[in-house]
Amino acid sequence: MYQLVLIRHGQSAWNLENRFTGWVDIDLTEQGMLEARRAGHLLREAGFHFDVAYTSVLKRAIRTLWLALDEMDQMWIPVINSWRLNERHYGALAGLNKAETAAKHGADQVQLWRRSYDVRPPAMSKDDPRTSFADPRYAGVPHSEIPLTECLKDTVARALPFWHSDIAPAIRAGRRVVISAHNNSLRALIKYLDDVSETDIVGIEIPNGLPLVYEINAELKPIRHYYLE
Amino acid sequence: MYQLVLIRHGQSAWNLENRFTGWVDIDLTEQGMLEARRAGHLLREAGFHFDVAYTSVLKRAIRTLWLALDEMDQMWIPVINSWRLNERHYGALAGLNKAETAAKHGADQVQLWRRSYDVRPPAMSKDDPRTSFADPRYAGVPHSEIPLTECLKDTVARALPFWHSDIAPAIRAGRRVVISAHNNSLRALIKYLDDVSETDIVGIEIPNGLPLVYEINAELKPIRHYYLE
Repeated sequence: MYQLVLIRHGQSAWNLENRFTGWVDIDLTEQGMLEARRAGHLLREAGFHFDVAYTSVLKRAIRTLWLALDEMDQMWIPVINSWRLNERHYGALAGLNKAETAAKHGADQVQLWRRSYDVRPPAMSKDDPRTSFADPRYAGVPHSEIPLTECLKDTVARALPFWHSDIAPAIRAGRRVVISAHNNSLRALIKYLDDVSETDIVGIEIPNGLPLVYEINAELKPIRHYYLE
Repeated sequence: MYQLVLIRHGQSAWNLENRFTGWVDIDLTEQGMLEARRAGHLLREAGFHFDVAYTSVLKRAIRTLWLALDEMDQMWIPVINSWRLNERHYGALAGLNKAETAAKHGADQVQLWRRSYDVRPPAMSKDDPRTSFADPRYAGVPHSEIPLTECLKDTVARALPFWHSDIAPAIRAGRRVVISAHNNSLRALIKYLDDVSETDIVGIEIPNGLPLVYEINAELKPIRHYYLE
């Protein structure tokens, strides 16, 4: 039996301000940093040790991982960053307040963008200064793969190749894995692991900073999962 | 022309207490953390960007790197940890106060251990609880390569293979490299790069937390070097 631990980053400044974030590189709040340290503390108390960590290229996930590893006294393990673990790209909504967006477009429309599986928010235009084309962290990513908006289905489609190419082989090799990522990139993994339907996955909320432990068998199928808290 | 930046970790608790440290995993002091942040600030102000970072498996070097990358807003770059960048192993002297050791063994003897190129301090015994054999961070290292003491010559011999296998190829591939490490593992690199004699290298002190910039040519030979401060 293998173990895999998923952590959604602690509270970010735009979680607190109720703004759509997506690929915008917003940092943790003080509370978010405490949540991250607490995640590490819970993992240490429960006797977890990791051989490798995966995270996105966004600092709210990276800092969450760093703080947790610091609490666990495991700062020395390899950390692999991938854009494929980034949060869902929120398109033109990035930075907008969720309540204001609902007032403008209607609550039903915003609910559809937030909670449907395959309806994309309006895309950023290609010359929007908020696009990621010129950001050096995506220098190795073909422009055709850098999104201008994503629905959850899109996030699943770009996250799972990294599961298959990197994470699953590490688990099969017996490496104890922790993944620090985002609500929607973790949903992508959970949808695949637990074979959750498109209807049900959008209703699953992952709390900030609570380690989600998966026990999985030799075929990498989950036996059970639980939150450490 | 390539650029390479070396950073010796900020002040550690045992730097402050004047104790031999070596492979003991001692953390930074508050001042050390400030030095690390300042290194990142200096690099950012000077317009440095990195594609990959190398560090040891000891938290004083890792934390220095993390704090510097945080200040530079480059937390997302790949970080590669190697035991080959660890500080010189200080043998049985690890943890001892330098002044007390001088009082016990004589100042000349301690000076020889500290400042000769090829005289090793007394070795730890193999069953000393301070050895690194059972430490999981060295699980991939053959026991025969895990030292019980080292002179600087030994440190050079185990650090340079990592330069040749990993760091030099990355520089040749055009990647902008930063290395956060220790007085003696950095001396090992400097001795090789600048072809410093065995006599002279032991006199070179690298200040804590000051970025040391090397400009190097296509054959990886240094053209000049300078500290950012």
